[in-house]
Amino acid sequence: MDDFIARPDGDLSWLVSRGEAAGDAGFTPFMESVDALLMGRSTYQAIADQDDWPYLGRPVHVLSSTLPADVDPRITVHRDVAAAVDVLSEAGHRRVYVDGGRTTRAFLEAGLITELTLSRVPVLIGQGAPLFGPLSADIELEHVRTEVLGGGMVQTTYRVLPRADATPESVARAV
Amino acid sequence: MDDFIARPDGDLSWLVSRGEAAGDAGFTPFMESVDALLMGRSTYQAIADQDDWPYLGRPVHVLSSTLPADVDPRITVHRDVAAAVDVLSEAGHRRVYVDGGRTTRAFLEAGLITELTLSRVPVLIGQGAPLFGPLSADIELEHVRTEVLGGGMVQTTYRVLPRADATPESVARAV
Repeated sequence: MDDFIARPDGDLSWLVSRGEAAGDAGFTPFMESVDALLMGRSTYQAIADQDDWPYLGRPVHVLSSTLPADVDPRITVHRDVAAAVDVLSEAGHRRVYVDGGRTTRAFLEAGLITELTLSRVPVLIGQGAPLFGPLSADIELEHVRTEVLGGGMVQTTYRVLPRADATPESVARAV
Repeated sequence: MDDFIARPDGDLSWLVSRGEAAGDAGFTPFMESVDALLMGRSTYQAIADQDDWPYLGRPVHVLSSTLPADVDPRITVHRDVAAAVDVLSEAGHRRVYVDGGRTTRAFLEAGLITELTLSRVPVLIGQGAPLFGPLSADIELEHVRTEVLGGGMVQTTYRVLPRADATPESVARAV
């Protein structure tokens, strides 16, 4: 609820412990709708620590300047956003699920996010890794749908409106 | 959407400009349901700058260590939270609308907020005055209702669950 997606040490138990009440939260149809995933190293490590690898066989790409390329056969490691975007584009992936705070912020700033789905868990944790952060200009959203899920989770999907100043060059600079 | 309730300089035009699309946003029945208002100095000054004083004659209390006591005949100035709570209690005000980031955080921490209504405007402004912030412990909420308003504003009301460690003494310490 307060924009933090993990505790300062990366702990997600405040979220994972609510899994049963929330049910699938639309995750399966959402995963079926994407071609691939892209996340940052912190998000990858938080997920890799869980029992479950919930990505239905979709290719998982991870941004990291430090992880060894062969750290995990389930993932492909990229050293920066531009390299990841190149590989995803060349593979023909049109709809990529971008996850994690830093990665989402970089893609928002680059104008590469077209749709944003937020699932708000009814708890204030007070500190940790934020989802949102500084931007070079406002980003306008358009409400698409809101659903109240089990456990009081409120899930809203927005369309991200193009920024007035977005050009291919600004995207190239941003990544 | 990103937890900022005003720009760094206090500007609210990103919010106020959407007023017409959002309609009343339930404000009138909500105001009719409260006995009094309490807000911080920043919120007061942002509202005082607008044409409209929308509080339907309810007593408005403002927390400030710097505002002169006679600055505005529409308000009562208090120097700290404890003084404000004393006056509101003695006046028999049971349901007080607490507004503004710092004031809301102080009352949340003190266990004095029983209900939280958030109206999320579909825009990311990137920086400014936050609504939420550090807490001495998690605060659990219970979803009461969610409504999608005009202009894509999503309004959710939560019940604030009592903190495990809350006692009258901890409240006294916190204020």
